[in-house]
Amino acid sequence: MGKTSTANLLLPFLFVLFSSSPPLITTEASKLGSFRFAPRFFGRFAANADLNNLQTHKSLKIQYETRYFTQVLDHFSFSNLPTFQQRYLINTDHWLGPNSMAPIFLYCGNEGDIEWFAVNTGFVWEIAPLFNAMVVFPEHRYYGKSMPFGSRDSAYKNAASLSYLTAEQALADFAALITDLKRNMSAEACPVVLFGGSYGGMLAAWMRIKYPHIAIGALASSAPILQFENIVPPETFYDIVSNDFRRESVSCFNTIKKSWDAIEAEGQTEEGLLRLTEEFHLCRNLRSTQDLEDWLESAYSYLAMVDYPYPSDFMMPLPGNPIKEVCRKIDSFPDGTSTLERIFAGVSVYYNYTGVVDCFDLGESNQDLGADGWDWQACTEMVMPMSSSQSTSMFTAYDFNYSSYQDECFKHFGIKPRSRWITTEFGGHELGWKQ
Amino acid sequence: MGKTSTANLLLPFLFVLFSSSPPLITTEASKLGSFRFAPRFFGRFAANADLNNLQTHKSLKIQYETRYFTQVLDHFSFSNLPTFQQRYLINTDHWLGPNSMAPIFLYCGNEGDIEWFAVNTGFVWEIAPLFNAMVVFPEHRYYGKSMPFGSRDSAYKNAASLSYLTAEQALADFAALITDLKRNMSAEACPVVLFGGSYGGMLAAWMRIKYPHIAIGALASSAPILQFENIVPPETFYDIVSNDFRRESVSCFNTIKKSWDAIEAEGQTEEGLLRLTEEFHLCRNLRSTQDLEDWLESAYSYLAMVDYPYPSDFMMPLPGNPIKEVCRKIDSFPDGTSTLERIFAGVSVYYNYTGVVDCFDLGESNQDLGADGWDWQACTEMVMPMSSSQSTSMFTAYDFNYSSYQDECFKHFGIKPRSRWITTEFGGHELGWKQ
Repeated sequence: MGKTSTANLLLPFLFVLFSSSPPLITTEASKLGSFRFAPRFFGRFAANADLNNLQTHKSLKIQYETRYFTQVLDHFSFSNLPTFQQRYLINTDHWLGPNSMAPIFLYCGNEGDIEWFAVNTGFVWEIAPLFNAMVVFPEHRYYGKSMPFGSRDSAYKNAASLSYLTAEQALADFAALITDLKRNMSAEACPVVLFGGSYGGMLAAWMRIKYPHIAIGALASSAPILQFENIVPPETFYDIVSNDFRRESVSCFNTIKKSWDAIEAEGQTEEGLLRLTEEFHLCRNLRSTQDLEDWLESAYSYLAMVDYPYPSDFMMPLPGNPIKEVCRKIDSFPDGTSTLERIFAGVSVYYNYTGVVDCFDLGESNQDLGADGWDWQACTEMVMPMSSSQSTSMFTAYDFNYSSYQDECFKHFGIKPRSRWITTEFGGHELGWKQ
Repeated sequence: MGKTSTANLLLPFLFVLFSSSPPLITTEASKLGSFRFAPRFFGRFAANADLNNLQTHKSLKIQYETRYFTQVLDHFSFSNLPTFQQRYLINTDHWLGPNSMAPIFLYCGNEGDIEWFAVNTGFVWEIAPLFNAMVVFPEHRYYGKSMPFGSRDSAYKNAASLSYLTAEQALADFAALITDLKRNMSAEACPVVLFGGSYGGMLAAWMRIKYPHIAIGALASSAPILQFENIVPPETFYDIVSNDFRRESVSCFNTIKKSWDAIEAEGQTEEGLLRLTEEFHLCRNLRSTQDLEDWLESAYSYLAMVDYPYPSDFMMPLPGNPIKEVCRKIDSFPDGTSTLERIFAGVSVYYNYTGVVDCFDLGESNQDLGADGWDWQACTEMVMPMSSSQSTSMFTAYDFNYSSYQDECFKHFGIKPRSRWITTEFGGHELGWKQ
C-alpha cells in the first residue's frame, strides 16, 4: 500500500515508514468460503514464514535472548484459571542500565510468531543503539509459543478455551510483563516507548491510551483503529488498494476491474473451469470461480500492503515497487491478448517472483474451525466492516452484512460478536475523523 | 475526617467538600476476627441504611427514575456467560436535550445500594440544575439490585460466581451503559462528567484515566487510589484519624491512646470481661477484648470520615463536628474518672447520639463467607496495606502482613490476592507522591 494512501487508514498518532525494513502490514480481506471475515494479517495466500531463515536484512544486527514470563490468563476476573508462559525476546546490549534513564522499546506483538515480527521490524533494531534503548518483543497470547493451557491444541480447542484471546487481555499481558521486568531490572525510571504495526500498531495505540502510566509514547504504524463501526466508510480499504493500482496504470486498473466478469463467464461450465485451471497453472482442478477470485483479491491486497520501494521478503519475495511491476506485466502484452493471460502474468509477480513454483495451490487446509486465532478475534471484538464498491474500486461489489457476519461467527465458534465493544473500550468516534 | 488532612489521601485530581451534603467516605479498617482486611466503606458498626427514609436533605429535590440495563458479565473475555440487569437511576428534568450539548453527570456507584449513594450525594443534585445536566447513578455490579446470576445468593455463592466482581468490570459496565444511553438519546455530543466518593471516587478517577474518550472530567472525592503497594506509608490512614482527634484535644487523644491498655488489663479475667460488658452497656457478654477494641476503633475511624461541620445522618445520626463533641465528652469528667468511663461516654456520641439505644450489639452476624462484596474485592485486587503506629497514632501498633493477609484470603475465598495488579492497571507510583 502506498505511503500516502496508507496514512488515510491511520490514527492521528504517529506514523512512520520504516526506512530499511518493511513496515508491518495493515489489513487484508480474507474470506472463509464466500464469507468475508474481518481483515487479517496472515492470509492463506501468504508464504509460510521460514523461521529458520527469517532475517532478511543481513546488514542489521538482530539478536535477542528468548525468555518466558508467567502470565495470568484472565487479568480482569478472578476465576481459578491456570497461568501460562508468555514468550518474549529481549536485547539489552545497547541499554545503559537502570540509572541511565535509557528508554525501553516495547514492540506490541501481533497475531503471529513474535520472531517473525522481530526480524521484520528493522526500524526498532536500527534506532535502538542510537537511543541506548533496551528492546523487548513480547509475544501475543495464543500465538507462536505463548499458548495457554499448555499447547496450541488445548488453547484452540473450543470457544471456552479461546475465550481469553482478546486485545484487552493482550495489553494487560504487556503491562504486567513490562512492569515486572522494570522492577526486576531496577529500571522503573526508564521510559517505555511502544511500537507496533498492523494489529500490533492498534495495540500500541490502544496501550498508549489505556496505560499512560506505563508508556510515554507509541509509534502505531498501519494501525486501522478507525476501521470499526463505520467510523471510516467500509469501502476505504479496497478503495485504497485500487488507487494504488490506478496510480501506476489506469489500463492495469481497468484490466483487473474487468477480469472478474471474464472469470465468471469462463467458470459457467466445467470446461471453462478446466481452462481456468490450466490458464492459472493450478495444482488441482478449480471447483468454483470464487476460490480463484479470492486468490487474486488476496494478491492485490497484499501487494498494496507490501508495496515497498525496495526488494523485500516479508509476505513473499518481491521486487521493489511490486505494484508497478505487476502493472508493467499486465500492460506489456500486445493488443488482443486475453484479460486472463494478462492477469495471470501480473499475479505471478506476487505468487511466483522467484519462478520456482510449478503450480499454485489454492488449498483451504488451514480453514478448520478454531485453527486461526485471528478469525476468533474477528468474531468476538475485532469486527471491522469492510465492503467494496464496484464504482470506486477495481473489485466486485461487496456489502458488509453484519447479520450474516454474526450468523457465520455463531456457526464457526458458537459465539456472537460484540460489534460495538472496541469503540466503547478504546474510543474512535470522538477522534474527529471526517470523511 | 478533617478537610485538610483528608486531602493527604487523595489523588492530585479534584477534591471537593460537598457543601450541603456529606462527601462519601474514604476508608475504614475493618477486621475479620483479629485480621484486618482492606478498608471498607460499609462497616459492621455503621447503622443500617433505611432505604425507605433515605433522604436526609429534605430541602433538596432528589428525584429519579429507576431503569435497568442488560450488561455483559465479562467484558474482557468471551466465555459463554449469562448477562445481568444493572440498575441505574436517571433524572433528565433539567437536561436541555440532545442538541444542547448539556452535560451528563455520571456518578460511579460504590459498593452498596445505589439509592443510598444517590440520596447522600446532594452536591450532584444541587449543581445539576445549574448546568442543565442529566444525572445518572448506575449501580455497581454485585451490589444492591444489580446481581449477576439472578440473585444475591447465586452471585455470592462461591469464588467462581464472584469472579467478575472487579473494578475493571464495573468501569466497563459504566462505559457500556453511558455509551448506549447516549446513543439512544442522541446525546453523543453531550460531555460526561464523572463523580464519585470513596471507592466510587477511585472508580471516577480510574474511569477518567481509562476512558478519556467517554469522560471529559472526574470529581474524585476521598478516593484513596494511592493506598496501594506502599505508595503512601501504610500508617497514613490511622495517623490522619488520630490527628483529627489530637487537633481537637490532646488530652482526648491521650485518653484514647491509653484506653487500649486499660481494656486489655481489665479483660485478663472473666470478672473483668463482665465489668467491661456492663461498663459499655453491651447486650451480650464480652468474650474477648478484641471485639470491644474493634468496635471502638471503628467508631473513631468513622467519626473521622464523617466529621462534617453540620449535623448529618450518613453512617449514623450525628451532631456537627462530631469529633469535637466526642472529645468534649471525654474531657468533661472530673479528675479521677476512669479512662473507660470517659471512653464509653465519648463513643456513645457515635453509637447513640439519639439516646435510644439500650444496649450495644457487637454482633458478627454479617461476617459469613462471601456475605460482603467488599471483602471479596479486598481479597482479590483491592489490596490496601494499612498499619497503625503506636508512636504516631492513638491506636495500638499493627503491622500489615501480606503473607498472613494472603493466607486469610485463601482461607475465606480460596483465592489469592493480586497485590500489584491495581497499580499495574491504573498506575499510582508515577503520580509523584512524596512522603
